[in-house]
Parts: sequence; C-alpha cells; structure tokens
Amino acid sequence: MIEHGSRGNPPEQYDLLVTGGLVLCCDAAGSVVENAAVAVVGDRIAAVGPVANFSSSRARKVIDAKGGIVLPGLINTHTHAAMTLFRGLADDLPLMTWLEDHIFPAEAKLTQEAVYWGAQLACAEMIRSGTTCFCDMYLFAGSVARAVADAGMRALVGEVLFDFPSANYGPLAQGLAYTEALIEKWAAHPLVSVAVEPHSPYLCAASLLEEAADLAARHQVPLITHLSETRGEVAQVRKRYGKTPVQHLADLGVLSDRLIAAHCVVLTEDDLTLLRRFDVKVSHNPESNMKLASGIAPVRDMLARGICVGLGTDGCASNNDLDLFAEMNTAAKLHKVHALDPTVTSAAEVLCMSTRSAARVLGMTNKIGTLETGKQADLIVIDTCQPHLVPMYHPVSHLVYAARGGDVITSVIGGRVVMEDRRLTTIDEAVVIKEARRLAAAITGRLL
Amino acid sequence: MIEHGSRGNPPEQYDLLVTGGLVLCCDAAGSVVENAAVAVVGDRIAAVGPVANFSSSRARKVIDAKGGIVLPGLINTHTHAAMTLFRGLADDLPLMTWLEDHIFPAEAKLTQEAVYWGAQLACAEMIRSGTTCFCDMYLFAGSVARAVADAGMRALVGEVLFDFPSANYGPLAQGLAYTEALIEKWAAHPLVSVAVEPHSPYLCAASLLEEAADLAARHQVPLITHLSETRGEVAQVRKRYGKTPVQHLADLGVLSDRLIAAHCVVLTEDDLTLLRRFDVKVSHNPESNMKLASGIAPVRDMLARGICVGLGTDGCASNNDLDLFAEMNTAAKLHKVHALDPTVTSAAEVLCMSTRSAARVLGMTNKIGTLETGKQADLIVIDTCQPHLVPMYHPVSHLVYAARGGDVITSVIGGRVVMEDRRLTTIDEAVVIKEARRLAAAITGRLL
Repeated sequence: MIEHGSRGNPPEQYDLLVTGGLVLCCDAAGSVVENAAVAVVGDRIAAVGPVANFSSSRARKVIDAKGGIVLPGLINTHTHAAMTLFRGLADDLPLMTWLEDHIFPAEAKLTQEAVYWGAQLACAEMIRSGTTCFCDMYLFAGSVARAVADAGMRALVGEVLFDFPSANYGPLAQGLAYTEALIEKWAAHPLVSVAVEPHSPYLCAASLLEEAADLAARHQVPLITHLSETRGEVAQVRKRYGKTPVQHLADLGVLSDRLIAAHCVVLTEDDLTLLRRFDVKVSHNPESNMKLASGIAPVRDMLARGICVGLGTDGCASNNDLDLFAEMNTAAKLHKVHALDPTVTSAAEVLCMSTRSAARVLGMTNKIGTLETGKQADLIVIDTCQPHLVPMYHPVSHLVYAARGGDVITSVIGGRVVMEDRRLTTIDEAVVIKEARRLAAAITGRLL
Repeated sequence: MIEHGSRGNPPEQYDLLVTGGLVLCCDAAGSVVENAAVAVVGDRIAAVGPVANFSSSRARKVIDAKGGIVLPGLINTHTHAAMTLFRGLADDLPLMTWLEDHIFPAEAKLTQEAVYWGAQLACAEMIRSGTTCFCDMYLFAGSVARAVADAGMRALVGEVLFDFPSANYGPLAQGLAYTEALIEKWAAHPLVSVAVEPHSPYLCAASLLEEAADLAARHQVPLITHLSETRGEVAQVRKRYGKTPVQHLADLGVLSDRLIAAHCVVLTEDDLTLLRRFDVKVSHNPESNMKLASGIAPVRDMLARGICVGLGTDGCASNNDLDLFAEMNTAAKLHKVHALDPTVTSAAEVLCMSTRSAARVLGMTNKIGTLETGKQADLIVIDTCQPHLVPMYHPVSHLVYAARGGDVITSVIGGRVVMEDRRLTTIDEAVVIKEARRLAAAITGRLL
C-alpha cells in the first residue's frame, strides 16, 4: 500500500511534506521505510516513500523529521476528557468512597463551561503526548465537541446516559433526544463525530439500552458502554438479571460490531465467545483497571480469539494522565507478568492496539490508524536523539518500552500541524491552564 | 527537622538558594512547605523554610523554583547502568533465549571503554529523569565509577562476581581482590562508593558468597546480590541445596542489615520472616519483573512486616529505561491490582521507596533521601505548569501518578547544579550519544 512518490513524473505540489524520518506505517504488512517522506494534500496522505522519490517535489510546508520516527497519531479508545479537572482529586481509596465522597459530588457541580475547558486541557495534554484522536464519554458532550473542534483534534464524543437525571440534559427522557440532536449537528464535521453512549448495564435499565442501540443503528454510529469493569458490577447484574453483563446485552440484542465495550475485565469463557461472535470492539484500559484495583482484562485470550482490542487511558480521575505511550508500556508488561510469559503482548501487538486496531474499534478503519495513501494525514514525529532513546535497535520496541509522551515533537491532524517543535498551534495553553485551575477550584473548593 | 532560615539574624551567605517552590522534604513527618527555599552551603543543606525567612540572605547562585515542586533527588536502588548499550536489543522473548542468544553474547564483548560510555549515557538519562543517586552492579565497575564521578552523580557501584571467568578481572580468584582494590581506591570520594557484589545464589558457590560477605563486613560496605528473582532460580537452588535461596543465605551467615537483595519476587512466609529478622534491605524492580514475566514481588507483605524496600529500575535490557517516575507509577498501580485493593501501596509509600527508604536501603540514611539541614544537597525541581500536571490537588499524588521523568527541569547533586532548565552541565550529551551508538554498534553489529 506504499506509494513510491513521483520519481520520473513532473514535480508535484504538496501542502505538507514530513521528510527524512524513519516511517512506521503501522499497516497490516508492518511496513517500515527508512529516510522516508510523507506527502500530504489537503487533509489526506498523498504518498509515502523514500525521500529520494520526492527530490523534485515542492511543498508549501516542510517538516524536517531527520533522526526521528514518524508514525500514525495514537488513538485513545476510551476516556472522559474533561475529568482532567479532577486529576488527583482523590487516590488510593476504596472504590465507593472515591466515587461517592469525591467524584460524584464534584461532577454534580459541572457546567458547560467547566467541561469545555477541562476538555481543552485534555486536548492539550493528548496532543503533547502523541494522541491525535480519542473516544470520549461524558456529561455536556456538546461542550466536549466544541472544545475538540477548536483544538483541531479528531474525536468520537457522546453524552453519557443513565437512569437518573443529568446535570446536562435534565430528565432521563431527554437524553436520547439530546444525543440525536448532537449526532445531526456534527454529522458533516471533518473531525468530530458523535456516538450513542449508555453508561453501563448496571446504571441503565434494559429499555434504555435497547433504545440507545436502536438510535445508534438508525444513524449508523457507534454505541459505547462500560462493560464488565469490576467484580462488583458483574455480581450486581447477575443478581438483578441472573446473567453476566455480556449475556444480558446479548439477550437485549445490543451486541453488534458497532458496540464499543470499555474495560471488559471480568469475563467468562461464554462472554468471550459472545464478544467474538458479534465482533464487539473492546477498549482496554490497563492503568485505570490497575489503579482502581478492578482486575486484569483477559487481553491475551481476546487477541487469541480475534477480538479487536484498542487501548484507552480512561479519565484522569483514575489514571491520572492521558499518555498513551505510558499506557502501551504498561499494557505490554502487565500481561506478561499476569501470564508469567514474556512473549505475551509483544511491542508490535501493543502498538497496533493504539493505531490500526484502535481505528477499527472506533469504526474509522478507512480514515485513520495507518500511514497509507488516501488516509487522513494524522501523524506524529518522535525525537529519538535523547539519552533514553539511544541506541536504537528496533523502533517498535523503542516506542512501546522506552519512549514517553514527551518525546513527541510534532503532530499533524487532518493535514494541519497542531504541534511543531513542542509548541501547540491550535490551543492557547496559558489560557487553558488558567481557566482549568479556576474552574477546578470553584467546583472542588480544594485546589492547592 | 525544618530550620527556619535567618529571620532576625544578620544576612547569611549561601552558595545556592533554590527558592519559591513547594518543598516536599520527604522526611518521616511528611513535611511540606509552600513557597519555600532550600539553602545550600558547600555540598550540604544549610536550611529549609518559607521564602520570607530568607529575604535578607544572599547567595552566589539562585534557582527560581516558583510554580514547581522541590523534592529530594530520587534514588535508584538497583540497576546495571551500562546496559543502556543493549536497550531494546531483544524483547518479548523467553528468558533463556533472551539471555543466551542476545544478552550474554553482547556482554562477552564489553570493554572498559564501552562500559564507561554506557554508564555515562545512563547518568545522562537518570539526571534528566530526576535520579541523583543509584546502586549499580556490572562488569568493569572501575569504569562505572569513573563515569559516575565525571558526571557528578552519586552512586554505590560494584563489580559483579560469579563462579566463572570475567571479561574484566579474569579468573574467579581475582574478583574479590579487584573489588577490595576498588573499595580502597574510592574510599574518600565524596560521591562514589563501592560495594561487594556476588551475582546470586545460583551463579555463586557457597564459598564465594561467604568470602564476599566477609569482605563487605571487613570494610563495612554493603553486600549486594540478586535474590529469588524467578521461580526457575528458586527451583534450581532448592534442587542443589534443598532450601530456598533466602534460607541458603541465612545458613551461610550472609543475611545482615548490610545486605541489599534485588528483586525478592518468589518468597515463602519463612523467607519474609528471615528478611525481617536480619533487616535485609530489598530492592523492588517491578517493571523488569513484569517485562521478564518473573512475577510480582510481595511488597505489601514486606511493608506490613516492616522490611525496608526501595525501588529500582534494573538494567535497560529489561525495562527499557531508567525512569524512576515511571517506576513509581507502575509500582503504585501494580500492587493495587495484584491485591484487588486500591488502598495498597499509596502514593506516599511509593515516593518513600524512591527517597527516604531508598537511602536506607543503600546505607546512606545520614546523607541523602530527605531535604533536611545537614543532609547532602541532592534535590530536583519539577515544572508543574504543564497540561498533564494541571490542576494540582495533592503534590505527592501528582509525583507518583501524573509526573514523568521529563518534568524534572533542574537537578542538584552534592550542592552542584548538574542540570538547569533541562540542560546538563556535567555531561556533553552529543559526545555521549555518539560514543554510545558507535560502541553499541561495534558490540552487537545490529544497530539500526
């Protein structure tokens, strides 16, 4: 799938040329091109190939990636972006104490404004750590959509729906209408799209889950829910319905290849079979599952069965960052020690979970996740000329086991340079930091 | 233990004043001083207190830490620094394939020169990620000592001893003599000291372990060994001696409060009792244990029994970095999910494992590990005005769950500024990177 540029053809005019780097396409073939260029026209990749092929090309803008690694922007398959406002609000506590004494009271005071600035802060953090697209679930999803569009990021957003009144849309009955309006409002946007997002089988009645699935099917958008995150949840659902959360969704007709199930930590063999049969997409959030002591998702079993798994960070209240490089590092190591087998979750598999597979999780396979001609130009450049990245034997190993979010120096989303040499071009960081501090203090009354 | 500066006294003259930061002393009381200054005279801390107390003080050099967190430099209790040369040489392989086909052949080609530059590269990486002191075990320890001294870092180094000839000192019989000469050579150095370091109960005969312990006792220096790292090791020692590695060392009279035991992953209840009884110090290396699939050390049980545990990164062939911030993050989360209890290994406990407890592990309690008057001036400054560190509710939580090595902007070791605003002052990074790449390529023949 690699185009070999314009050798022998008349000089071509590109909008952007990212040149001189080691390019990891992250395609199915695992293509790696040394001393390569990625050429962009508009919002798309026009060609990828050796630099020599582009010697007679012109470009409006050239980014020198010499000595760097160029790869697709990472994709965060599950987060609650605006929870940046509650980063480190409370840690090391029993789950229910944490939720009921700290997180829920803070969330009850959220406003459109707070969610906007919290989401902008998240965008700044994500761009700085190499993420170009994320999947969000939160209150005031309209504010999240605006914050994302203003940041020039790509995202799939949605309003969280549950069986009780919302600080945003009010009574339960309004939730689906709010979501539908949001889907229609953003339908034509190049970067932002909207999903239907019932919170979970334990906070959503069967009827809400069914109606949400219908709405998602009608608009052909993803349906997103938390699923089998904790043993407590599974016990609760078993008590109420006499079956596992996965079986419950199967019986409601909610499982489909458009369902994105976040967490999937506590699964039976039958659950795994169902997830595979319906080609349900799984978002794996190892650091959040570790910090909240939920458990270790059976990722090795999922991959062995061919279930599509993408990585996610979850929200900043339970991680406490949005850095997918750190998440890749943790995922690769966690499943090795869990299986007592160092060959489990190889660096290549884990990188795939943040690029190609993650795109498939979000239903964006035709747009992002690899560097291939015709795909959206979402890419990042890693500076490898730093002590902790020297020497380099295997770039994929480096990305997973040694690189950090802070090593990303340049980021391009839909052909637009959103960060260059560590400077954000779409976000006024000083303003975002100031507003986020002000609003976090107002909500929690506890800021240092 | 906090001195309150010079209010009301005549102006004082300091060599260095680090001023305006939020100072975490990491002392037993958990002292935190907002808008504080740390005053340094020579290589020691002269005072810590609110900035106002220092208004009439003068200093040869002032570092503005406003908006930052100031804390003791982190202490890495176990690494093989020069293995930076083999960072990512081979990953995701069965342990014996990794060792026998990749690591051992590479190590057989090591030279004094390669170890010097590999260790310098490690020093650059460690200073950049907030480590000011480390405990090393490797071949050509004399080169490590020189590299550390040249870098202005603090370290406890030692030559690895085992039952077969060494690429450095030659036949087995020379190992202890080499170590003793090294102890004497560096005895008066302000930053570098030397330990006696038999590799492990499975690569060292009983006689070598006994003689090593005698040498360490004679010179009153630490004795360092790998201990109970893998199930394979424990099975091998059980087969050979009919007892666990810990019991074997106990019966040899090798357990003592000067023994630093790295890993301690596979322990019985009786092993834990022995470690506590002899006040053996443990270096916990969670990321290496995860990546090599060795297992999860029973850190919760160790802490509950009062065993002194410090964090370590292990070498770059099995981690693949030397970043203690990442290691703290992993340690705090790993033991939560292992115990299925989110209250296990709190942020404060984990920070202690990299500061105060780590100093105790290395026998340096009277010198480093806390910011207190009279201690060595080993400190770091974290820049918190970045998206991923905003907002801040609890600085200790931030350090463990959100900060990364790259957030350290300034580092002071023994009163000397070794990094300021991310620029190293003691190491020529370009030279180190060039030499490390050259030597790694020469040794492995495989560099990208």
